[in-house]
Amino acid sequence: MSEMPRQRGLLFCLSGPSGVGKGTVIDEVRRRRPQVAHSISITTRPPRPGEIEGVHYYFRTPEQFHQLLVEGEILEHDNYCGNYYGTPRSPLEAMRDEGRDVLMDITVPGSLAVMENYSDVVMMFLMPPTLTELRNRLNKRGTENDSVVEQRLLKGRIEINKANLFKYVVINDELTATVDRILAIMDAEHCRYERLKGLEAFVLSH
Amino acid sequence: MSEMPRQRGLLFCLSGPSGVGKGTVIDEVRRRRPQVAHSISITTRPPRPGEIEGVHYYFRTPEQFHQLLVEGEILEHDNYCGNYYGTPRSPLEAMRDEGRDVLMDITVPGSLAVMENYSDVVMMFLMPPTLTELRNRLNKRGTENDSVVEQRLLKGRIEINKANLFKYVVINDELTATVDRILAIMDAEHCRYERLKGLEAFVLSH
Repeated sequence: MSEMPRQRGLLFCLSGPSGVGKGTVIDEVRRRRPQVAHSISITTRPPRPGEIEGVHYYFRTPEQFHQLLVEGEILEHDNYCGNYYGTPRSPLEAMRDEGRDVLMDITVPGSLAVMENYSDVVMMFLMPPTLTELRNRLNKRGTENDSVVEQRLLKGRIEINKANLFKYVVINDELTATVDRILAIMDAEHCRYERLKGLEAFVLSH
Repeated sequence: MSEMPRQRGLLFCLSGPSGVGKGTVIDEVRRRRPQVAHSISITTRPPRPGEIEGVHYYFRTPEQFHQLLVEGEILEHDNYCGNYYGTPRSPLEAMRDEGRDVLMDITVPGSLAVMENYSDVVMMFLMPPTLTELRNRLNKRGTENDSVVEQRLLKGRIEINKANLFKYVVINDELTATVDRILAIMDAEHCRYERLKGLEAFVLSH
């Protein structure tokens, strides 16, 4: 039987409030499905010892960064401690052309920017089971004092009220179940009619 | 931790050309996930020995059937050998209220009627890998002569060109992979923001 034309990879974005566990969830998604790619950010921060260009970050000068911004190459960006961080478009397209899905970890404000700049992205919001649980998770990190936790929690409340802007909402109650849901969303999106351009023509002619 | 308000079950419809394997696929979905319900048809055909009301069919007189049609209780119907067969709405609603997903096996013309009568249904089209493979499957049944196979194949070609009316298209290449995709679609649909009404209010108040 002839091979079906290979589908292009899809772009997924996982967002959610600070402390909800995006990093852990994405690590587990990639452990269970290693072919899922992640996006590498561009930064104007100088490389730290051991950091490799194109692995940890793409390192660019502020002038280069601004040029890329002007060219529309940067889907979302932020300034942290005087350095710019951004998500570049071309590497995502290249991975998608190879048939790989890309799963990005992006802040809630960053996600809203991505939605504006890139229509073909599947937005997922990672939701804590309760606000109490989000506070517990922020406390457990133990690296912040109470006022920082309360500040993050306030920001989290505001962000939870933006869940309506996302296509999917995944409740992060238990890691395995959460990752099951994310993988289900990724698989289901590949079955959407509009992702399968040319399928009928292929089936009818083979 | 308080329990999240239970989600209502969703209604899924699996359609596709004759011979593509809908029945086998649905049996396997229900074997792997027994809580998935199926819809029981109403018919005007008299019960055969051993057939039980509400298990195999709901048996109704032609007058009762037409009354239900007029009341909008029948989502789609067909006439076969002089008897009416239809899909009733109320039992689906009752199963959904219990939190059970319902997976219906409906012909392509029936699916188009369901879409018109019931907006909250997730439509899936089961696609043969190739037309050659569909012919092989129709031949393997061995119960029909060549001209019946060719007639079904012609109808199948027309139906494959209606795949664009469905939200999801699932290629039925290998049973386990096919059922994986259908379960992924069912799980992903439960994570859609619009299915999770009241979630933010719950999370923020607990």
